[in-house]
Amino acid sequence: MKEVMGGVCAAKGFKAAGEHCGIRKNKTKRDVALIVSETRAAAAGVYTTNLLKGAPLLVTKDNISDGYAQAVICNSGNANTCNVDGVEVAEKTCELVAKATGLNVKDVIVASTGVIGLPLSIEPFETNMDMLVSKLSTDGGKNAANAILTTDTFRKEIAYSFEIDGKVCTIGGIAKGSGMIHPNMATMLSFITTDAAISPEMLQKALSADIQDTFNMVSVDGDTSTNDMVCILANGMAENKMIDAENADYAIFREALNAVTSFLCREIAKDGEGATKLITCIAKNAADIKTAKTVAKAVICSNLFKAAIFGEDANWGRAMCAVGYSGADIDIDKIDLDFSSKAGEIAMCRNGKVVEFSEEKAKKVLMENEITVVVDLRMGDCEATAWGCDLTYDYVKINGDYRT
Amino acid sequence: MKEVMGGVCAAKGFKAAGEHCGIRKNKTKRDVALIVSETRAAAAGVYTTNLLKGAPLLVTKDNISDGYAQAVICNSGNANTCNVDGVEVAEKTCELVAKATGLNVKDVIVASTGVIGLPLSIEPFETNMDMLVSKLSTDGGKNAANAILTTDTFRKEIAYSFEIDGKVCTIGGIAKGSGMIHPNMATMLSFITTDAAISPEMLQKALSADIQDTFNMVSVDGDTSTNDMVCILANGMAENKMIDAENADYAIFREALNAVTSFLCREIAKDGEGATKLITCIAKNAADIKTAKTVAKAVICSNLFKAAIFGEDANWGRAMCAVGYSGADIDIDKIDLDFSSKAGEIAMCRNGKVVEFSEEKAKKVLMENEITVVVDLRMGDCEATAWGCDLTYDYVKINGDYRT
Repeated sequence: MKEVMGGVCAAKGFKAAGEHCGIRKNKTKRDVALIVSETRAAAAGVYTTNLLKGAPLLVTKDNISDGYAQAVICNSGNANTCNVDGVEVAEKTCELVAKATGLNVKDVIVASTGVIGLPLSIEPFETNMDMLVSKLSTDGGKNAANAILTTDTFRKEIAYSFEIDGKVCTIGGIAKGSGMIHPNMATMLSFITTDAAISPEMLQKALSADIQDTFNMVSVDGDTSTNDMVCILANGMAENKMIDAENADYAIFREALNAVTSFLCREIAKDGEGATKLITCIAKNAADIKTAKTVAKAVICSNLFKAAIFGEDANWGRAMCAVGYSGADIDIDKIDLDFSSKAGEIAMCRNGKVVEFSEEKAKKVLMENEITVVVDLRMGDCEATAWGCDLTYDYVKINGDYRT
Repeated sequence: MKEVMGGVCAAKGFKAAGEHCGIRKNKTKRDVALIVSETRAAAAGVYTTNLLKGAPLLVTKDNISDGYAQAVICNSGNANTCNVDGVEVAEKTCELVAKATGLNVKDVIVASTGVIGLPLSIEPFETNMDMLVSKLSTDGGKNAANAILTTDTFRKEIAYSFEIDGKVCTIGGIAKGSGMIHPNMATMLSFITTDAAISPEMLQKALSADIQDTFNMVSVDGDTSTNDMVCILANGMAENKMIDAENADYAIFREALNAVTSFLCREIAKDGEGATKLITCIAKNAADIKTAKTVAKAVICSNLFKAAIFGEDANWGRAMCAVGYSGADIDIDKIDLDFSSKAGEIAMCRNGKVVEFSEEKAKKVLMENEITVVVDLRMGDCEATAWGCDLTYDYVKINGDYRT
């Protein structure tokens, strides 16, 4: 497997565009992304578990219920959630895409992100759809990646090539993160494209399994969005033998998919609203995977611990406190806890009790911008990783005045 | 029932003190509180559900297992948690109290709050116990209330008198809050005293029932502390007929207890670390109490919503989002949501969809320092209230550099 350029356009047969269409006031901000596959592609999606769901999710779920799709349209700046005419606007958006590209309206995936409860006009889509379609190109991945961002500070894209059945396959993805990030079943928005040939059933299986260890292990602020969605399109243009069972090829595909999603997850956490540091928590030697996940996620979700990391304060007791209230079935008196970063590693706790440590060394470890907390539960051999970020003044600033 | 002065010394037979004993570096900060009843009192306690428990909790649980106690000692500045000799130091502290007051060592309640994983020396207690005991007085409630505070900005105390069986009874309490506040079974520290005569069994029953609607409905930051504890002492000196069943007198007592605890809860939320606003969420017309509580608590726990309230931004969609991911079994399309404050009330959402509102009026409502969110679920007749606070720059500031 090797990293390649191009994001969602890296795989054969995908074009993308991202332009300012007037949904956002800021004219320099691209606000609508369009991704189109040359051929109809197997499609799979996972969606928020929030009972309050954005209208586009309902339309997308219906459109890919047959296992296929060919285009993705996504706007930022407005979530199209809690709007009386939300479904109507999302459907009309798909119709505009279908009309301008000649695709079937039922092969369009539609997504939105932004403010909840702000009516979304169809007008910017009507006015700009032909322009947007005219911008579609194999170099458009970057623009599409930019167009789906909200408070993100950098675009998130990645692509890898790998080999299945003697054929070079490629998989690439983009994501948006930043705020309201605590995915459950899916995360914010991520769109992944691949030219691997894989049946819709196996594609859905691969995606549903993968997100349990990737997007569902990310949290910026504990708030599960109404518009979380991860969709993947696989157009088969790499011409490998169709993956239609959990065989060796499926395993290779899973690995490539995981490389894309786990990269995007780290990027989302690193670029959490206001974040200055990526916090990775590895819970190891757990009795089972669920316990490991519960512990790792509790640590990266603790406001108090996140604020301590922002302050580069070795307040490991807050991480232990989070482990204790996580609800996981553990023996608190067995736990070892270490901090590490590029600057080294330092033991903070053994058998649930404080150990003497050098404040100076701890400070040095915590001054780096990627911090790892290792929680050794010493009860088994299962491990899980969760990604989060520090809690900063800028998080408060961004969210104290996001809407107005 | 009427409010009276004196806090934990308002009830007959209670004396208190709060002095600087050298646990904190700042010599102007009182750091040890002592409360003593003239007679042995029925005692009840509730404790954190965090698997990581402060050593004092273990000692207290054991000491009041017979249903009686006579004194409370509590230090701030050090949680005595994750320390190798934690239990030993807590037991020794009780011995020092017993020796200096002539009480039975098993009648002492011990509590601590502050940094986790910092060894606590017995020396400050040894040196200062006689001085502390000499300061015990019926005017000492205020000093005791001050001595248990950490990052709190004001002391929290209240007392009420009420009548049972023709006798005037009094109940008073103190609490500390501020950070690591998301109680589960008990909250941070609160000590309540009363001269009502009530059996240990009924006292525990009253306390355990009460906290479900009071302390367990408060959250400052979602972090359930390792040292949460609420204890109540009832010395019977009001000479009412002993309450030993769920009769009319018990109902009066429950009402008085609830007046004390719900006052202290609002005070804790209002004085959350860095808070500028008290947020009260009332979830009404729920199918059952559990649903109402889940919804109310999800709203006051949302970081995004808390930050919006700090910014006086009417971003009601974040409250709806929290309702949606709360896990409660509700019909999102039935929900009505309003904001209110002293400045008036304003409808934000009807049947789960946005309604037009005046930004100007919303701003006016949100400029007040006590904001209420009313979520009408329209599915039944159960109601619950939760208390929280906004998320501010100062929360980050306080917690980015708390330990060092």
